[in-house]
Formats: sequence, C-alpha cells, structure tokens
Amino acid sequence: MDRERAKFPVRIGLLGCGTVGGGVIRLVTENADYLASRIGARLEIVRVLVRDESKERSPECRKEWLTTNPEDVFGDKNLDMVVEVMGGEEPANTYIERAIRQGYGIVTANKLLLAKRGPALMEQAIARGVDLAFEASVGGGIPIVRTLREALTSDWVSSVHAILNGTCNYILTRMRDEKLPFAEVLADAQRLGYAESDPTLDVDGHDAAQKLVLLSMLAFGARVDATELHVEGIRAIDQLDFEFAERFGFTIKHLAIGHDYGERLLLRAHPALIQKSSVLANVDGVLNGVFVVGRALGPCLLVGRGAGAMPTAVSVVADIVDVARSKIEGAAGLATRGIQLKSRQLVPMAEVKARYYLRFDVADHPGVLAIIAGALGKQAVSIAQMVQDDRATEAEGTVPVLIITHHSDEGSVRRAIDSIAGEPFMKGTPRLIRIEDV
Amino acid sequence: MDRERAKFPVRIGLLGCGTVGGGVIRLVTENADYLASRIGARLEIVRVLVRDESKERSPECRKEWLTTNPEDVFGDKNLDMVVEVMGGEEPANTYIERAIRQGYGIVTANKLLLAKRGPALMEQAIARGVDLAFEASVGGGIPIVRTLREALTSDWVSSVHAILNGTCNYILTRMRDEKLPFAEVLADAQRLGYAESDPTLDVDGHDAAQKLVLLSMLAFGARVDATELHVEGIRAIDQLDFEFAERFGFTIKHLAIGHDYGERLLLRAHPALIQKSSVLANVDGVLNGVFVVGRALGPCLLVGRGAGAMPTAVSVVADIVDVARSKIEGAAGLATRGIQLKSRQLVPMAEVKARYYLRFDVADHPGVLAIIAGALGKQAVSIAQMVQDDRATEAEGTVPVLIITHHSDEGSVRRAIDSIAGEPFMKGTPRLIRIEDV
Repeated sequence: MDRERAKFPVRIGLLGCGTVGGGVIRLVTENADYLASRIGARLEIVRVLVRDESKERSPECRKEWLTTNPEDVFGDKNLDMVVEVMGGEEPANTYIERAIRQGYGIVTANKLLLAKRGPALMEQAIARGVDLAFEASVGGGIPIVRTLREALTSDWVSSVHAILNGTCNYILTRMRDEKLPFAEVLADAQRLGYAESDPTLDVDGHDAAQKLVLLSMLAFGARVDATELHVEGIRAIDQLDFEFAERFGFTIKHLAIGHDYGERLLLRAHPALIQKSSVLANVDGVLNGVFVVGRALGPCLLVGRGAGAMPTAVSVVADIVDVARSKIEGAAGLATRGIQLKSRQLVPMAEVKARYYLRFDVADHPGVLAIIAGALGKQAVSIAQMVQDDRATEAEGTVPVLIITHHSDEGSVRRAIDSIAGEPFMKGTPRLIRIEDV
Repeated sequence: MDRERAKFPVRIGLLGCGTVGGGVIRLVTENADYLASRIGARLEIVRVLVRDESKERSPECRKEWLTTNPEDVFGDKNLDMVVEVMGGEEPANTYIERAIRQGYGIVTANKLLLAKRGPALMEQAIARGVDLAFEASVGGGIPIVRTLREALTSDWVSSVHAILNGTCNYILTRMRDEKLPFAEVLADAQRLGYAESDPTLDVDGHDAAQKLVLLSMLAFGARVDATELHVEGIRAIDQLDFEFAERFGFTIKHLAIGHDYGERLLLRAHPALIQKSSVLANVDGVLNGVFVVGRALGPCLLVGRGAGAMPTAVSVVADIVDVARSKIEGAAGLATRGIQLKSRQLVPMAEVKARYYLRFDVADHPGVLAIIAGALGKQAVSIAQMVQDDRATEAEGTVPVLIITHHSDEGSVRRAIDSIAGEPFMKGTPRLIRIEDV
C-alpha cells in the first residue's frame, strides 16, 4: 500500500445528481467511517456537476459541491475518480473519455452509453490502465458484473439466460397473474413509473439486448454490436398464449440469451416459454434475474432489483470502493486488468435448435389442421402437441391452432410457417415463441 | 503496485489434495496465463501437503510438489499463501493459525472449521493484518461471501433466508416430486453420494446452522456460537405434510434464517412452508440459495451448487486471485479489512412472530376439534384454516387435524400445543412448521 497516499482522502467528482446521485451521496455520507476502514482512506466528494445549480437537492448534497462548469471537475489535477450518474449518451461519453485520458478512475451507471460504446470505452480504459467499473449499468442492484469478473475468474461461461428488463417482466407478470391485456398493464406501468412514456426501448426488447451486449463482454470476452442481435419484444403476446403456456406447465418471460459455441456466439433477446419449475419462473414483477452456466461452476442464478435509485446507488458505491482501493494501492486498472475483447461471429437464428410454441389463428374450416401439419411435416418439423381451441380468438370466426414442436432447427420451422402464412385460411400473423430449457 | 515484487510469482502451499484440491490445481494450471494477467503475477504452486505421498493424484498434480511434512510448507519463508482444502477440524485449525502467525495469506474451503472457529480465526487474521478468504466454505460455488463483503459494502442486511444444505434440499425435493418417504430418499442420497453414511449433521439441520453462523459474520458483523441457535431437521416430515402444503400453495424447504433487529439477532435453522411463487421455491435438488434483503438494495437472491469439487474449486481460485492481488499490491488484509465482529444477543424462539402450520394426529373421536380449537383460542392463537383429513395416517385409527394459524407469537402457539399434547386423544407428537413469507 502507498502509505503516504492513504493519509489523504480519495477525491471524487460526481457527474449528475438525480435520484441515483442523491442515493450515492447518502450512502457515502452515512457509511463514511465503515467505507474508510474498508478502503484504507476516506472518500471525499469534492465536486458535483449538475445542469441546474438552483434545483432542489437531497439534504446530504452540500451547496458548495455544486457546479455547472465541467472544468471545475476536469481541471482538478488531484481528482482520483469520476462517478458518472447523469445518464444519456452525451455529454456523458465526452466526460468519460476525458476522464480516461486524464487517468481518473471511473464508475458509471450508464447502461445506454455502455451498450453503445462499452467495448470502445473499455478498450480505451485498458490501454490507459485506468479502472472503468460499471456494476450498476446491468441489472441495477444485482452483483452480476462482479460475479462474472471475479467469482468466475477461473471458469468459462458457456451460457447466460437473463431477465434484464424490469418493464417487460412487470407487464408479463401482471398479464399472467391478473389475466389483463398488454395495453392495460402497460398503461398502468406508465402511471406507476415502471415504464417510460415512450416504452419502445423496453417492450420491444432493445434494452435487454443492450444489456446482453454488456454481459457478453464480461461473460464471453466478446465485442458485439447490439444492432446485430436478433431482438423481439412482447407486444404480440396475449391471454391465449398465457393460457396455453399454463396448460402445458410453462410461463412466459422475456429473456436475453447468450451461448458460447467456441468460434461463434449465439446472442438473442425475445419472449420465451420456460418450465414453471425453472429457477427463472418465479423471478416476477420488476425483479431481474441472470442465470449463468459455467463449465466448472455449473449453474448460478442471481436475482434482484434491476432498477431503482437505492439498489443502483448500492452498486455504484461498491464500485467506488473497488476503484478507490485500486487508487490507494497504486494499482489502477484492477477492474479492467486482463480483459481482452474479441470480435465474435454470431450464429444466425436459422441455426437455432429449440422446441417451438407455434400459434396459427385460422378460419374454422375443415382440412386446416391437415394443411398445417403437412407444412410442418414437409420441413421435417415434428409435432409434440397440437390443440385446436374451440374458444374463438378476439377476431370473430377465427380459431387458434396451437402447436408445440419437438426439437427442430429454426430455419425449417420458419420455412413451414412462411408457407402456412400464405394460406387463405390464415387470419393475422403466425406466432412463434421459443421454448427454452432453463 | 510493488513492481519489483510483481516480477516474481505468487507462491502457494496447498494443504490437502482431494477432489477439491485436484480441481484447484487443474483450474490454476489451465488458466495460468489469464490468471496471471488478472493478478499481475503468475501463480506458482510450490508444495502440496498430503497424508499419503503414494496415493494416485490427478495428472496436473506434479510428484515433486507432494510432501507429508508440514515443515516443507511452513518452513518456507518466501511462501505467500496457503490454500487449505484438507477439511476437518484438526490439523487444519493448527495449520491456519500458524499461517496467520507467519503472515501468509489464507484461502480455506473448510466449512466445519470455520463454523466452529470462524469468528476467532477471523479476529486473529484481522489483528495480524492477513487475508483470510473463505468463499468456498459457504454455498460452494455461490459467490455469497463476495457479495456480502463487497457488493453490499454500503448497505445493511436486514434479513437472510437461505437453503444451505444440499442433502436436505435433495431429499425434500424428491419427497415432494416423487411422493417418496424420507427414509427411502435418504438411502438413495447415500447411494448417490449426496448424503454421508452418518447423515446427522445434514438432515438434523446442524450443517445449515453452522453455515448461517458464517453468513451472520458477514451479513450482520455478528460473533455467534452455532450451539446457541434453534435448529430442527427434516426427519419428521412426511407425505401428508407435503400434500397439505401443496393444497394451500406452499412447498417445504429447510431454511437457515437470520433477522437483524438492531440490538438483537434472530437466527434459526428449520423446515419451513414457503409460497410456491417464492423465488426460493424452485431452488430444488442439490442447489443452494441465499436470499438477502438489504435496506437500500432490497431483495437479492443467489443460487448455485452448494457443493461438488469443481464449483468449490472455482470459488477457491477466485479467493486465490483476491489474496494474490493483495500480496502483489502489498495490501494484505483486503478481504478482512474493516470487518469488526460483535457478540450479539439472540432473540428467543418464543418471541418469533409467524404463521404456523400445525398438525395433530388424533384418535377419531367426536369433540376433538373443539378441544384443539379451544386450546389455541385460549392462547389467543387465531386459526386461518382447519382441516380434518378423512384419510388415515400411517397409524391405524388415527386422523390428522391440520391447521394454519394467522400471525401469532411462538410462545403462545407452543403453550397451546403443549396443552393439546397431553390430551388422551393425541397419537404421536404434534407437528409445528413455520410459514415464512419469503
């Protein structure tokens, strides 16, 4: 330990002071003595960069910390660390890149920025030998980054199945438990603050895909672009899907899934049927869950609040402690040391092998079942269950044909569906939901 | 970083070379380059202390490492770390105390030793400023020690509910799913190696209680003696309990439970009814699960394999990396720094407030229900459900009376049960299982 150094506090510049920033200040203030004993030096917040100095702040946030001028932070040669809790892509990205250049340790909770620029920022930080810690940016209060980085350091992750979007999980849980339609629960979620007024990023699966990109960096050492991933949302799912899932012992979750196949990676985010006995099946409401399988470790599940000011702040402070220790020990770069990111080729969805839940809403004519079964048979897709429900769907004169297939490759299933979709008896779009064994 | 030092490897003495030790050697050997890049120095196993040099070892274990003489390890002034994977109380305790005195970093997977001597060893290590890391001793491959120590460093844990004994969980899972009696599943578990030939420590709950003592050190900063805890095992549970639990939406798990009530702690290990929708309900088979509630973090669940050579070895190697980093940085004591253990008074079980599942196997006479209900009413224990099952229990001429109470204090419930137990219609011992809201 650099004992000369430890006499002095670790000096922090906080970027942003919303609910998460306020939570960080509160935890750092309330636990000052304990954190000092863990770190070996006191933490000192010296500057808090905000957009509006006149705005009301939490009582722990001292007036004299506040500034609207970034030079008050970045002009400070003795600063040890910046903690970015402002969110959004810019100016956060500019600030973090500047912090890397100036050799500050960095803690960020910025999911959006890391999803877009994570691998690039990570590589800059590695090259400059500075710490870039981002526990709070994936799964809020769940210690998944730490677990992948440290607990699994001698293991290889072979797969990840994760519930990463609290909005989707909240909506699907209430649709299932209260038998409500998607639109109604979404409106409720918006009222309660669990969903944005523009819910696209969440309910269409992009947020989960972005977080999967971050997990893939740590789990698979992969440099991947979120735009390359296969992504589906939950808008199309209705009560009939839940009823059928229930009847066969499944529940429906929106999952982000990664498999490491050696040369190639399979990454995707979409709704899935999982067994009700799965450890992920009871991860309900706004909870997030990450199920990792390590070659040596075997299965490991982490569940917690994926968002919220205080859970996020707890993760930010855990990172602050790590980065502060690195600074004190003169060993900056601990959080990033040894990580090498490689571009990895992605497996196309047509090569996925799974069981499938298929649903065709059809006009109630004789012979329809035979045509559907025939189309699947022609592609060598074998049927495990087939149900023609006698209840009408929402559209009048239409009945649903529900199918569970045996394991098949998705290319064949797709070809069968495409041929069925063109039949005159088809009403609406065929539904395909993968059944994941997790 | 002590850059002079980093040119040299981190020198490890391994104590014991069974399946876990073999796993550690394998992981350290296979991942040598990656671990070196994470640590900043190479790991070098210099000695492996065994009882019998002639015994067959895994191929990664080099013959020249093996020794039966502890002086070959403890006489080495340049050793950095001992890794204790021999298990058992002695001579492990003597070796660890000697390692502390000699200033070596220590990694141990020894649950039994830590449960008995954990607080004392921890305090010796803190006083001497050496690292004592023991992730593998609780929950095998689950990163719970790391999570409590680091992820939750700025938070207060208010409660822990944990499935910590794989043998109990395996037996209860198969009893429930296959409707088998306890004795038959236990015999199977013994055949499969999931239970010891003397299963007392596991099925009577003592192993879970010992692990709870370790968790309490980290979660509550508590110095507690395992012998003070209220402990119950699973031997008494039968199919009728499972059937009744199922009927009311519960499953039965053996839980280790801790609550921090400020001045006092409530610690206990016993079977419990939990809702089937609980995140712990699907933690089945040999899996372990730890559900922590932090004041700021909220709920956090970790699930994984509680035992097994490779999951345990992964946790041991994660600790080796931490302790090696501390050594390299010249900052020994990171794993223990800031931890202060306090003796805490325990809440007596009579003060527990819960809902209760009660079962009285009685002779099928008129008036029995009235007497039972009256005895409960006299103690102000309010009944939520009462079922007299018409199926006979195993004993002929006996019927079970099954009750679920509203929230009551355990002292009152106990007094009611004791008075009922003395009635002439009672056959066998009344059953009490707590219903835990988790």
